[in-house]
Amino acid sequence: MLRDCSDHQITRETESLIRELYPICRSITGDGVRQTLRILQGQIPLTIQEVASGTRVFDWTVPKEWNIRGAFIKNGRGDKIVDFADCNLHVVGYSVPFKGRLSLEELKKHLFALPEHPDWIPYRTTYYKESWGFCLSHRQLTEMTDGVYEVYIDSSLHDGQLTYGEYYIAGERSDEVLLSCHICHPSLCNDNLSGIALMVSLAKHLTQRKRRYSYRFLFIPGTIGSIAWLALNEAHVASIKHGFVVAGVGDKGGFTYKKSRRRDAEIDRVFSYVLRNSADNSKIIDFHPYGYDERQFCSPGFNLSVGCVMRTPFGEYPEYHTSADNLDFISFEALSDSFEKCVSALNILDNNGVYSNQNPKCEPQLGKRGVYGSIGGETDRRTDEMAILWVLNMSDGTNSLLDIADRSGLNFAIIVKAAQALLDHGLLKESPE
Amino acid sequence: MLRDCSDHQITRETESLIRELYPICRSITGDGVRQTLRILQGQIPLTIQEVASGTRVFDWTVPKEWNIRGAFIKNGRGDKIVDFADCNLHVVGYSVPFKGRLSLEELKKHLFALPEHPDWIPYRTTYYKESWGFCLSHRQLTEMTDGVYEVYIDSSLHDGQLTYGEYYIAGERSDEVLLSCHICHPSLCNDNLSGIALMVSLAKHLTQRKRRYSYRFLFIPGTIGSIAWLALNEAHVASIKHGFVVAGVGDKGGFTYKKSRRRDAEIDRVFSYVLRNSADNSKIIDFHPYGYDERQFCSPGFNLSVGCVMRTPFGEYPEYHTSADNLDFISFEALSDSFEKCVSALNILDNNGVYSNQNPKCEPQLGKRGVYGSIGGETDRRTDEMAILWVLNMSDGTNSLLDIADRSGLNFAIIVKAAQALLDHGLLKESPE
Amino acid sequence: MLRDCSDHQITRETESLIRELYPICRSITGDGVRQTLRILQGQIPLTIQEVASGTRVFDWTVPKEWNIRGAFIKNGRGDKIVDFADCNLHVVGYSVPFKGRLSLEELKKHLFALPEHPDWIPYRTTYYKESWGFCLSHRQLTEMTDGVYEVYIDSSLHDGQLTYGEYYIAGERSDEVLLSCHICHPSLCNDNLSGIALMVSLAKHLTQRKRRYSYRFLFIPGTIGSIAWLALNEAHVASIKHGFVVAGVGDKGGFTYKKSRRRDAEIDRVFSYVLRNSADNSKIIDFHPYGYDERQFCSPGFNLSVGCVMRTPFGEYPEYHTSADNLDFISFEALSDSFEKCVSALNILDNNGVYSNQNPKCEPQLGKRGVYGSIGGETDRRTDEMAILWVLNMSDGTNSLLDIADRSGLNFAIIVKAAQALLDHGLLKESPE
Repeated sequence: MLRDCSDHQITRETESLIRELYPICRSITGDGVRQTLRILQGQIPLTIQEVASGTRVFDWTVPKEWNIRGAFIKNGRGDKIVDFADCNLHVVGYSVPFKGRLSLEELKKHLFALPEHPDWIPYRTTYYKESWGFCLSHRQLTEMTDGVYEVYIDSSLHDGQLTYGEYYIAGERSDEVLLSCHICHPSLCNDNLSGIALMVSLAKHLTQRKRRYSYRFLFIPGTIGSIAWLALNEAHVASIKHGFVVAGVGDKGGFTYKKSRRRDAEIDRVFSYVLRNSADNSKIIDFHPYGYDERQFCSPGFNLSVGCVMRTPFGEYPEYHTSADNLDFISFEALSDSFEKCVSALNILDNNGVYSNQNPKCEPQLGKRGVYGSIGGETDRRTDEMAILWVLNMSDGTNSLLDIADRSGLNFAIIVKAAQALLDHGLLKESPE
Repeated sequence: MLRDCSDHQITRETESLIRELYPICRSITGDGVRQTLRILQGQIPLTIQEVASGTRVFDWTVPKEWNIRGAFIKNGRGDKIVDFADCNLHVVGYSVPFKGRLSLEELKKHLFALPEHPDWIPYRTTYYKESWGFCLSHRQLTEMTDGVYEVYIDSSLHDGQLTYGEYYIAGERSDEVLLSCHICHPSLCNDNLSGIALMVSLAKHLTQRKRRYSYRFLFIPGTIGSIAWLALNEAHVASIKHGFVVAGVGDKGGFTYKKSRRRDAEIDRVFSYVLRNSADNSKIIDFHPYGYDERQFCSPGFNLSVGCVMRTPFGEYPEYHTSADNLDFISFEALSDSFEKCVSALNILDNNGVYSNQNPKCEPQLGKRGVYGSIGGETDRRTDEMAILWVLNMSDGTNSLLDIADRSGLNFAIIVKAAQALLDHGLLKESPE
Repeated sequence: MLRDCSDHQITRETESLIRELYPICRSITGDGVRQTLRILQGQIPLTIQEVASGTRVFDWTVPKEWNIRGAFIKNGRGDKIVDFADCNLHVVGYSVPFKGRLSLEELKKHLFALPEHPDWIPYRTTYYKESWGFCLSHRQLTEMTDGVYEVYIDSSLHDGQLTYGEYYIAGERSDEVLLSCHICHPSLCNDNLSGIALMVSLAKHLTQRKRRYSYRFLFIPGTIGSIAWLALNEAHVASIKHGFVVAGVGDKGGFTYKKSRRRDAEIDRVFSYVLRNSADNSKIIDFHPYGYDERQFCSPGFNLSVGCVMRTPFGEYPEYHTSADNLDFISFEALSDSFEKCVSALNILDNNGVYSNQNPKCEPQLGKRGVYGSIGGETDRRTDEMAILWVLNMSDGTNSLLDIADRSGLNFAIIVKAAQALLDHGLLKESPE
C-alpha cells in the first residue's frame, strides 16, 4: 500500500552519502569504483563483481583498467597551474601516462575548456582511443602565455577488472524488477551521485516492505557495464519483467519519465499514472535510442520493459558534464520528490495484480457477507462501495488493478483496498499469469 | 425502415396507464406487483411468472413475500398524523408488522424525513434486514411534540412468491433483443412508471412491425428480479445479442444512453448514431457498475451487450426517490422523445445487416440493370447513387450497414434503401453471421 | 534516394506532347486512342493491346468501336453553325451516324449547353445508349432561330476493338507498383492529358533509376478499360502491391491524394508523409467509391492498395468537362509539382524496406567499426548518429524505414542513408517479406 512507505525517505544520511562520494575519482573501471561500491556496502549489502579486461561482451571488449594517482601542468616558473589534486575533472578520463615538456601550441591540442562558461571545467573521457588531455576553465586557459610547460600524468592503464555492484532482494515471485544506475562519473553530482543515492534509498525501502516481485539493483559503469551485465547474465534476462534506469534525479527541474521502447509497457503505464496524478511540472517523454543504459536494455534483441527516470534530461541543462554539476547544483527537495515518485510507481507496480471474480454471474450479495464494513481507512463508504463494484465487475482475469483504476477514475490505492477486502472474503482470486 | 413507426407513439392511453398504475403499492414482491402486471396484460399479452421464496438464485435467495394493508401513527389525541392510506411512501418498504406505543424519542429511530426538502416524503426500503419504519415530510416531523404515539403496521412477511412479467415476440431469427425495466417501486412516477409505460409502447410497436430479431421484454423487480431471471434462464442467455434496460425516461432532462460494459457493442454504436444525429441535449455516458439491472446483465460472467436508457441519471435530480417524483414530474413530450429515440435505435439495430456484394470484382454495370430507377423516395438521385456505390464497395461480409453509414457520412435510412434495392436486384446477399 | 531524380522533370518536351495530343478526338475506343498511344510510343516503349468488342469482362461487355470523321449542323441558309472540325467536343461521344433535317424544337432534344457559362462547350457521352447529340456554347444555342436545320454525323459504331497501352518496367522484385490513367477524353487538357503526360514523365524517370519494385503503367479508357484489364489479367493481380491512379494533375489547385479503400495501406502512408512534409496547400482525402479507376481497383473483390492523385478534385472546378479545360487551364508549375510529389512518393515506396539488426543484443560498438565516418552528405554528424541509433534500435524485422522516420521524427532520406551505411557494414540485413 502506498502509505507503507511514509517512514522511508531521502534523509540527511543520503546527503552525507553524496558528500562522501563526491571527491572520489570514478571512471568505467578502477579503484574509484571499488571505493564507491565499498562505501555503498555500508548502506546496503550489495555484492561487488569483477569482469576481467579483454572479456568479450557481445560486440564489445571489456577495456583495460585505468587508475590515476596525480597529474599536473607546470608553467615555466614551475607553478602548478592545473592540478588533478584540485579537481579530478582536470584530467581527461582514461588519459594514458605522460611526462614531457611541450610548447603552449602543442599542449593546446590536449586542452579542453568551455568558452561559453569561462569558470567551469568540462568533463571528458577517451575510453576507446589511447590519448591524454586536460580539462580546465576557459579563464585558466586564457591566462596561459607562450612558453614551455611541464606536463605529468601519473596514471596506469593495464589489464585488470571492470567492477560493478549488484544487490538482489527476493520477493514472493522470481519475476524481477530491474533498477540500474551508472557509477562511472568522477566529481559530478547530479550525474550521477543523485542516481546512486536514490537507488540506495529505494533499496532500503524495498528491503523493508512486502514484495510481490524480486528486485535487482545494478550499480554499473555506463554502456560497457550494462553490456557486460547483459552478456554475462543473458540466460537470466527473461526474469526481468519491468525496470527503469536512474539518471540525474537531483536537479531542480521537473521530474521526467522516459518510456521504454515498448511505449505501453506496464512500467510506462504506471509512471504515466503517477505523473498524471502529480500536480507539478513532471512530464513523460517518448522512448528514443540514446540516453543512458536503457539504450542497451531496450536494444531490439532484449526489448526489456525498462524506462528511465530523471529530472531535466541530459544535455538540456548547461551544467551537464561540467564542474558546475556540483553539490550546490542538486536539491534535496528535488531528490526527495524523485524518491517519492519512484516509490509510488513501485508500489503500484508491485500491487498491480490481475484477479478473477469468484462470483462472476450477477453481483454477490455484499450485504450479507459484510464486505463493506471490512474496509478500513479514511475514504467515505460510498467511494468504497464504488471501488468494490468496479473491482468485481472488471476482474475477469484480463484487467489489472491499474486498468480498473484508470477505467473507474478511482484512486489506485482505493482500488487496492477494495481488492484486498474482496480477497479476504473469498470473492476474488489472483489470476495465474 | 425508420418511417415504419410513425403511426406508433406515446398516446393519451399511455398517460392513462401511468395514472392507473400510480396509486398501487409495489415492492419487490407482493400483490402490488401482481396487480400491476395484470393491468399491463390489458395492453400486451405478457405472461406472469412466479418464483417461490427461498429459491437460491446465484449468491442470493428469493426473499419472503411482503404485503401491506394499512399503517399509521396516531398522536396522544388519537389523530392519525401519518397514514399509509394517504401515501404508500409513508411506510418503509418491507416493514415487518408492528403494533405498539412509543415515546417520540424511541419512535424517531424509525422515522425518515428530508430536512432539505421539508414537504417531500422520502422513499426507503429494508428488504434484507427485518425492521420497520415510516417516511414522512420534514414538516410533519417537526410538528411532532413530545408524548406517546401509537404505531400500527398491518403488513405481512411470509413465504410466498416473487412475481414478474415476461413478453416474448418472435422474429425471423431466434437471436434476441432484451428489454428490461423494474416494477418494484410504489407511487413513484419517473422511477419507474415511465419505464414501464415506454416498454409497453415499444412492445406494441414491435408486435406490429417486421422483425429480424426476436424481442424479450422483462417487467421485473430491480436487482433480485434480474438475478432470479438470469439464474433460472441461464441456458437461454446465449440467445441475447443486444439489449437495454429502461430506467427513468419521463423527466424533462436530456436523453441519456449508458453504454454496456463492452463499450463498443453494436447497441452502443447504434445509440451513439441516434444521439449524434439528434440536435438536442442528449448524451452518451460510459458504463459504470452501479445503476439499474445492467449491473447484473453486464456482470463479468454474463457480459451481455446491454446498455441503459434514461433521461437525467438517477441521483442527479433532487426528486429522485421522493414523493416529488409524481405525475407532475414527468412530461409526455419527454416520454415521447424517449420513445422515438428507442424506436430509432431498434429500427437501426433490426436493419443493421452485414451483406456481401455478389459482383465483388469491379462495379456491376448498374445502368443496364436499372438499379437506380428502382429506389423510391424523396432523396435526390445523386445521393441514391452514392449510397449504392458505398453499399457495393463496403459490403465484403465484414461491414454492417451502420458501418457503411458511418464511413460514408450518409444517413442510415438511405443506406438501408440502397441495400434493399441491391438485394432486390440480386447484387447483395445477407452474410451468414 | 530522393536526390537521384533531380535530373528528371517536367520539361518543354512534356508541354509539346500535350500540345500534340490536344486536338485528337479520343473516346473509350477508336482511332483517336490508337493515334494517341502511337504518339506515346515515341516517348516510352509501351505496347498497344486490343480487346474485341463483345468480350465479356465481369459484369460488362466491351462495346462496339466508335469512330467519327466529321459532323455539323447547318442552318436554313446552309451555314455550318456547329462543326466538329472546329472542336471535337461538339459531338456527343458515341453518337450514332445521323443525317436528317429537323425543326429547331426537335433538334433541341439533342443539344446540350451550359447556361451558367455561355461561352463554354460541355463534354458529354452516350456510351451505353445508342443516341446522338451535339454540345455547343449557350451563346451558339441562343442565336439559333426557328427553322429547319440540316444535321449530319459521319460516325461509325461497329464491332472492333477496345485499345489500351501498357508499359512494364522490371525491377529487382516481381512485386509491382501499378500506375494508371485514363486516355478516353477528347480535347480536354487537365482531364486527362495532364495525367497522361505525368505518367510518361514518371515512366522515363523510373526507367533510369534503380528499382526494387517492378512498375506497370496502364494508359486505358476510363471504367471499361480498367474493368477489361482486371478481367483479362485477374491471375496477375496478386503481384500488384501498391499503386495509384493519375487524374487531373495540371490545374492550379493544391495537390490532392485520395486514399485507397484500405485507408492505411503503405501507399497511403507514403503520400501522407510526402504531403505532411510539403509546406503547401496539398491535402489528403479519404477513399470514397466514386471518382476514377480506383473505383475498380478498390472494388471489394480486388481491394488493391491503389490511391489516386489529382489536384482539384473533379467536379470542384467549373471548367471540369467543358471546353474551358484547355491548354491555358493547366500550369506547368502545377504539373511539375505533381511530378515532384509523385517521384518523392515512389522514391520512399521503393526504398521503404524492412530490415533486421544483425547485432540486436545491445548496441554494436560503432566507433571501432567506423560507421559514422562512412555516411556522406550535408547533414550534421549528430543527426547521422541519431539516425543510425534509430535504425539499429527499430530494425527488428517489423518496422519499415518509413515507420522509423515517423517514429524518430527524422527525415526519411536521412534514415535511408543511415540504413545504407549499416547495410554496408553488415550490421543490417533486409528482412524477408
